Amino acid sequence: MEKLTLVQLNRTKIRDSYWDRYIDLVKSTIIPYQWNILNDKIPGAQTSHGLMNFKIAAKRETGEFYGVVFQDTDVAKWLEAVALSLASHTDKDLENTADEVIDLIEAAQQPDGYINTYFTIKEPEKRWSNLEEGHELYTAGHLMEAAVAYYNATGKRKFLDCICKFADLICTVFSNENNKDGYPGHQEVEIGLVKLYEVTGNRTYLAQAKEFLERRGREPNYFLEEEKRPDYKRIFPEFENYLPLYSQSHKPVREQDTAEGHAVRAVYMYCAMADVAYEYQDKELLQVCENLWNDISYKKMYITGSIGSSGLLERFTTGYDLPNNRNYSETCASIGLALFGRRMAQITRDAKYMEVVERALYNTLLSGVAMDGQSFFYVNPLEVWPDNCMPRTSMEHVKPVRQKWFGVACCPPNIARTLASIGEYIYFYDKSSIWINLFISSETVVEIEGHPVHLSQKTAFPNDGKIEITIENEDEAEFELAIRIPEYVKEYGLILDGKAIYPEVQKGYAKVMISGKNPSLVYKFALVPRILRANPLVKEDVGKVAIMKGPVVYCLEEVDNGKNLPAIFLDPEQELQESYEENLLGGTTVIRTAGKKVMTDGWHSNELYKESDLTMESIPLMFVPYPYWGNRQTGEMLVWVKEFI
Amino acid sequence: MEKLTLVQLNRTKIRDSYWDRYIDLVKSTIIPYQWNILNDKIPGAQTSHGLMNFKIAAKRETGEFYGVVFQDTDVAKWLEAVALSLASHTDKDLENTADEVIDLIEAAQQPDGYINTYFTIKEPEKRWSNLEEGHELYTAGHLMEAAVAYYNATGKRKFLDCICKFADLICTVFSNENNKDGYPGHQEVEIGLVKLYEVTGNRTYLAQAKEFLERRGREPNYFLEEEKRPDYKRIFPEFENYLPLYSQSHKPVREQDTAEGHAVRAVYMYCAMADVAYEYQDKELLQVCENLWNDISYKKMYITGSIGSSGLLERFTTGYDLPNNRNYSETCASIGLALFGRRMAQITRDAKYMEVVERALYNTLLSGVAMDGQSFFYVNPLEVWPDNCMPRTSMEHVKPVRQKWFGVACCPPNIARTLASIGEYIYFYDKSSIWINLFISSETVVEIEGHPVHLSQKTAFPNDGKIEITIENEDEAEFELAIRIPEYVKEYGLILDGKAIYPEVQKGYAKVMISGKNPSLVYKFALVPRILRANPLVKEDVGKVAIMKGPVVYCLEEVDNGKNLPAIFLDPEQELQESYEENLLGGTTVIRTAGKKVMTDGWHSNELYKESDLTMESIPLMFVPYPYWGNRQTGEMLVWVKEFI
Repeated sequence: MEKLTLVQLNRTKIRDSYWDRYIDLVKSTIIPYQWNILNDKIPGAQTSHGLMNFKIAAKRETGEFYGVVFQDTDVAKWLEAVALSLASHTDKDLENTADEVIDLIEAAQQPDGYINTYFTIKEPEKRWSNLEEGHELYTAGHLMEAAVAYYNATGKRKFLDCICKFADLICTVFSNENNKDGYPGHQEVEIGLVKLYEVTGNRTYLAQAKEFLERRGREPNYFLEEEKRPDYKRIFPEFENYLPLYSQSHKPVREQDTAEGHAVRAVYMYCAMADVAYEYQDKELLQVCENLWNDISYKKMYITGSIGSSGLLERFTTGYDLPNNRNYSETCASIGLALFGRRMAQITRDAKYMEVVERALYNTLLSGVAMDGQSFFYVNPLEVWPDNCMPRTSMEHVKPVRQKWFGVACCPPNIARTLASIGEYIYFYDKSSIWINLFISSETVVEIEGHPVHLSQKTAFPNDGKIEITIENEDEAEFELAIRIPEYVKEYGLILDGKAIYPEVQKGYAKVMISGKNPSLVYKFALVPRILRANPLVKEDVGKVAIMKGPVVYCLEEVDNGKNLPAIFLDPEQELQESYEENLLGGTTVIRTAGKKVMTDGWHSNELYKESDLTMESIPLMFVPYPYWGNRQTGEMLVWVKEFI
Repeated sequence: MEKLTLVQLNRTKIRDSYWDRYIDLVKSTIIPYQWNILNDKIPGAQTSHGLMNFKIAAKRETGEFYGVVFQDTDVAKWLEAVALSLASHTDKDLENTADEVIDLIEAAQQPDGYINTYFTIKEPEKRWSNLEEGHELYTAGHLMEAAVAYYNATGKRKFLDCICKFADLICTVFSNENNKDGYPGHQEVEIGLVKLYEVTGNRTYLAQAKEFLERRGREPNYFLEEEKRPDYKRIFPEFENYLPLYSQSHKPVREQDTAEGHAVRAVYMYCAMADVAYEYQDKELLQVCENLWNDISYKKMYITGSIGSSGLLERFTTGYDLPNNRNYSETCASIGLALFGRRMAQITRDAKYMEVVERALYNTLLSGVAMDGQSFFYVNPLEVWPDNCMPRTSMEHVKPVRQKWFGVACCPPNIARTLASIGEYIYFYDKSSIWINLFISSETVVEIEGHPVHLSQKTAFPNDGKIEITIENEDEAEFELAIRIPEYVKEYGLILDGKAIYPEVQKGYAKVMISGKNPSLVYKFALVPRILRANPLVKEDVGKVAIMKGPVVYCLEEVDNGKNLPAIFLDPEQELQESYEENLLGGTTVIRTAGKKVMTDGWHSNELYKESDLTMESIPLMFVPYPYWGNRQTGEMLVWVKEFI
C-alpha cells in the first residue's frame, strides 16, 4: 500500500463562497474569542481557567487547579488551531501570543518532561495511576498534535522539543521494559505519537503508538484491574459499572469488527490504527479499519455524518438505532470520523471515504458553530423541540440553542482547528498524480517528480455543480488528475481543453491524464435537490424523507414553517424548487415545496386521545441547510419529514 | 361537598374473566413469591434483605443493613397486600405469618416509637436529618397504610397501635411547637396519616397531614436549606443539582397548577391533597386538585393511563411530550394516578376521573406484572425494540422483558396491593345511592339507610358490552343507582325489569331510581374495536393510530407480526375484525386487520441512505391487549402504528 500525501496547509489557499464565512471566523473571531475564554474574560460563559492552570503549575501564580482533568487540552487545541491558521495567514501578533503560551507550557513542564496541570497541581503522586479516567495520555496527545502543527507552520522547534521530551518520558514509562502494560482510557496519544514520528523520524514514537493499540483489550482488562487497586479513586461518577466496551477495550483491536462505545474515543483510535496499519504495511489491521468504517457508515451514521446515538455516555449503540431528537452526535465525533476517513482515503484511494468525510464536514462540523463564531453545539440533533429539552430530564443533553462555552469544552477548539485545516482535505497527491476530493474554490501547488504544478478550482459548489479547473504546469509534467465523482452525481461532463473526455473511473475517481503547460478542465454535473430515504431498518426514519442538495442536508425550521414540524407531511411527487436567497443566512440556497400539515382543528385543549378524522391543511414548506439551523431564533427544527404513504 | 363511600373489601366478591387471572395470582403466587423475595429465597433475583433488616434492627440477628434507605417499604407493602387479600379470603396460615412479621416490626420499634431499619441500624444519629432523600416519612406512610389495612381486614389492633405510636412521634417531632418545619422528600406519609385518622378519629393525624402539605414549597426551600448544613451527606448521587420541582416543592401546593417532577411523588401528594380538601371542606384546595388532574389527563398521560415521560428522574416533563419508546411510565405512578382519581371521583361524582382510573388499571397496572405473577415491569414503554435497550445507554431504563425483582422494588408489592383492592374501585355508595364505576362480574352488599342491598354484575366486559345487574333489596329500600357511561360508549340501552328506560345522565353517570325487592337491570352497549388518534400536538403520535376496545389498549407484537414494527402502516379504512382466541394468552380477544409494511427489498446491507422508491407489501396485522405484551417471547412491541396519509 502506498499512501497519498496531504498538501501542506500553506500551499493551499481557499476562496470559496460556502467555506469562507466559516474559515474567516477562525482567525477573526474564534481564535480571539477562545483566547478570551481561556483567560476567563467572556462574561456569562462557563469558566475555563485553562491558562491559569498552567500559570499555577509553572508557579507563576498561586491558586487551585480548576476544571476537568483534561482542561489542558483546551489550550493545546487552541494552539493547534493557531498553528493551522498561521500556516495559511501569517500574523505576527498571534504568533507572539502563541510563543508566550508555549513558554508557559514549557515553564509548567516538570524536570522529567511531564506536562499535565491537573496532576502537577493537585495530585502529583497519582501520575499514571488512573489511566481509565485520568486523561493524561489524551492530554499529551493533543499537546503533540499542537506541537507538530506549530513546527510545520512556523519552523520553530521549541514547542516540538518540549513535547518530544514529554513523549520520551511516556515512551519510557510505558515501555515493555518497565512492565507498564497500560494504555489510554481516552485514545488520542496514538495519533500524536505518529505525528511526532512523522516530523522527527523517531520510530520509538511510532512503536509506542502501535504498542498502545496492541495492548488494548487484552485480558485481564487493564482498567478493571486498575479499579481494584486500593488507592483507586473514581473521577467521573458516571463511570461506575464501567464497561470496557465504552473505551473499545472489550477485546483486542484486531478482533473488533463493530464500532462500539464512546464515539470520539472510537474514531480517534481508528485514526491511529489506520496510521499504524500504513506505517507497518499491515494489511490485516487495515482490513480491521475498513470493517469498522463500514459498520459506522452502513449502520451507525446519521445522514448528517454524525455518530454516537446515545445521550448517556456519548456512545454508539446497535446498528440502525438512530433516533433523531435525543442523539448525541457530538461535533468532535464527526471531526474524528473525518480524520479517520481522510486517512483511509489516502491509503486506499477509494472515494467512499471522502463521500462520508464531505458529509461530516458540510453538515455536522458547521452545525457545531454559530455563524458569528461565538457559540457552539456539542450535541447535534436532527430534530429539536426546545420546550422538551428541560433540565434534569432525559432530553437535557440536547440544547436547542448554541452555548457560549462548556465545562467539557472539547468541541469549540476542535471546530476551530478543523476549519483551519479544511485545506488539507481538498487535495491529495503522490509523485505522479493529483487528487481532487472536495469541490472548493481554491489554489494549490504540489510537486510532481520535482516539477511544481499549480492547480486551481473555481466553483459555486454546493449551490451549483460546475467546477472549473485550471492548471499551470510550466515544466509540462505528465500526471494523472483523479477527480472524485460523488454518489449524488448521476451524470457528469468532463471537458479538457474544450473537448469532452470520458476517462475511466476507479473507486469513485475519474482518472484524467494531464500534460502540457496550461490545460484547463471543466467538470459539470446537475446539482439539484433530491429526496432520500433511509434503509427501512432505521426505525426512526421509516415513512420519512430527507432532502439534500449535494452533500448538504436540508431541514425545516419553525421560523419558516411554523410550530409542530412533526405534523408536516411532504408529498414526494411535488416539485422541489430551489432558489438562492441573498439576504437569508448570509446568502443561501433554499428549497421550497408543498406539503400538508395535520391540524389541531377540532381538538379541544381537554382532548388528548379520541376517535377523530385527520384534518390536514396544505402549507408551503421551506427548507434551509442543516448547518445553518438555529442561527435566527430559537425554535423547532426537523431533518426527517414524514411523507405521504 | 359530600364524599361517596368505598365498599369495604370483604363485602365485594369478584368473579370475572378479565380480572380473576390476575387477582388470583395475588394469593396463589405474588404474595408467596414476594414472601420468598423478602426472605431472599429466590435464586437469581435481586437481593431484598427486607426481613433481615428488621431482624437486625430488633437485635434478633446480627449483621449489616442492606438495600436502599426505603427498603422497609417492601415489607410494609407486602403486609398491606396480605391484609387486602385476607379481607376477601381468610387464610389462617397467611395471617399467622403476617402476625409474626408484625411482631418483628414491633420488636424493631425503638422505645420512642420510631421505626426505620436503615436509620436504626446504620445511622441512628441521623434521624430526620435528610428529609430530601432519607425516605423516613415515606416509609412511615407505607407502614401506616399497611397497619390500617390489617386492622380493617382482621380487626386486630396490635399493628395499628404500634404504628399509631410511631405516628404520635412524628406528630410531635414535626409539630409547629417543635419548630421542625420539614416535610417529606417523597410524599406518602400524608396519605397514611389521613388513613390513621379515618380509623382512629384522631384529628392530630389529619392536621399533621395538612401541615406537611401546607409547608411544602415555602421559601426558603426546606431541602435546599438542608443541603447547606455542615453534616449533610448526599444519599443518591443523581440528586446532585436538586431541583425542588422534582419533589413538587418548587412552590406552595395551592399555587401549583401543572403536574411537575417525579410522577409517583406527585400523584401520592395529590391523593393527600384531595383527602385534606375533603376533610376540611376546602374548595380552593379541591380546585387545585382538579387543575392538576386536568393537566395530567389532558396533556401528560399516555393512552395506557401511564405517566412520567422522562427516563431521567422518572418525572413529568412538558405538555404533549409523550415519547413512546423511552418513557418511564412507572407502574407505581399509574397506581398513584388511580388512587388520586378514585378520591376525586368520590368527592366530585364526576365520571371523568373513573374513565382515567379504568384506563390505568386495565392497561398499565396489568402490564406491570407477568401472567405468571413472577416478574414485573417497573417501566412501561409503548414501543420496544429489545436490541437497543442496551446497558449503559440512554435506553437502559427500558427493559424488554419483565424482571424478577428490583433493587428499588416499589412496583411489585404495589401491584399486589392494588390487585388485592380492585374490589374498592367497582362501587361507591352513600346513604341513598349506589354507584357502578367498573364493569366487573362481582357481588357486593351495601347499606342504604340501614337496609342491606345486595347488588351483582354479570358481564364478559371488556370482551363484550352487556352487563346484567341483579339486585336483592329485601327491605325495598329506595335508592338511586348511578351507572357510569364511559366515553367509549356511543349508544347504550338500559332495560329495567324488561323495560327500556332513558334516565338522566349527570357527569357521565346514568341515574336510575330503584325500588322493589328484586329489580334487574340490563345495561348494553356495542363494544367494538375503535381507532384513536392523539391530539396532533403530541409530536410522537402524529400520523399514527392506536386501537382500543373499551378501556383496553391493543398493541402489535413481533411474535405475531414479524420484526421492524415501525415499518408497518395501517389503513384506517380497512375493517377491524375481532375474535376471541381461547388458547392465546389464557384466552383473549384479538383484533385483525390488513396493513402494509415498508420492505427492505432493494436495500443492500451497505446502503444506509439513498434515493429510492418505497417498496411496500400487504401484510395481515394482529393486535393483542397491551397488558398482555411480553408474555410469550422477547421481541418488539408497538402501540401507536403509522397510518396511511
